[in-house]
Amino acid sequence: MHTKYLEDFEPGQIFRTRGMSMDESEIMDFARKYDPQPIHTDREAAAEGPFEGLIASGWHTGSMVFRLWVDLGFMEKSSLGGPGIENLRWLVPVRPGDTLHTEVEIIEARPSKSKPDRGILRYITRGINQRGETVITMDSASFLKRRPENVE
Amino acid sequence: MHTKYLEDFEPGQIFRTRGMSMDESEIMDFARKYDPQPIHTDREAAAEGPFEGLIASGWHTGSMVFRLWVDLGFMEKSSLGGPGIENLRWLVPVRPGDTLHTEVEIIEARPSKSKPDRGILRYITRGINQRGETVITMDSASFLKRRPENVE
Repeated sequence: MHTKYLEDFEPGQIFRTRGMSMDESEIMDFARKYDPQPIHTDREAAAEGPFEGLIASGWHTGSMVFRLWVDLGFMEKSSLGGPGIENLRWLVPVRPGDTLHTEVEIIEARPSKSKPDRGILRYITRGINQRGETVITMDSASFLKRRPENVE
Repeated sequence: MHTKYLEDFEPGQIFRTRGMSMDESEIMDFARKYDPQPIHTDREAAAEGPFEGLIASGWHTGSMVFRLWVDLGFMEKSSLGGPGIENLRWLVPVRPGDTLHTEVEIIEARPSKSKPDRGILRYITRGINQRGETVITMDSASFLKRRPENVE
């Protein structure tokens, strides 16, 4: 764990996480709680459905991809939450057995004008499967603390 | 469960779901798996943090609010998945003990030009707490089947 503050990020940086495999039981477990549609929870119905088999909930994919980024530990002591997400796109279905990793590309690290102790980090988050296909992409933002020694 | 097809939706309709309470153990359970930041998993650290206490992961809130919408059952037989989300905003922290319900406002139900059996439904999804505060809002879209009798 090595906390990064706002000043430690700059546009163009790309961070790549470790991978995480998604198995059928976890896909169904998430969906039973948070997205109980047959394409995520019913193997037989899903086989007859538009994706010809079970796929992960898009919320599951998004959460998992975000978790891999959190696991890098950069924001553990510096995060002040996030305002929201833009342009979230589910591009390729995630199926049992797929392994995802996350790439984060930094777009902007801008100090706040009104609050000198913080700023906003904007970044593109991409989830990528074992075939190199981007399965999800979104424009994310986080409020981050500035380095303590830079704050008056 | 009463499936709704594309033709069953029209702009201006508002659907309101039942409520669901979020307790501390579920907030921490989700976060341990999908968003293991101290503000979601460490009661002591969270008390010292920017929200002065544990709050739910934004991914958890989004997933729960979506699940309440799924539970209405409208899309069980008609959904063909979704392309993505725009303008997701976390507006108010969700804390242990809060009860959320979902309101869905239909914006557009437009038949596909190229695929006569389906169309796209656009809607605003809002998660609302027990004080009537909107805690999350997002612009959602789903691909939906048209009524079978309307498809040649």
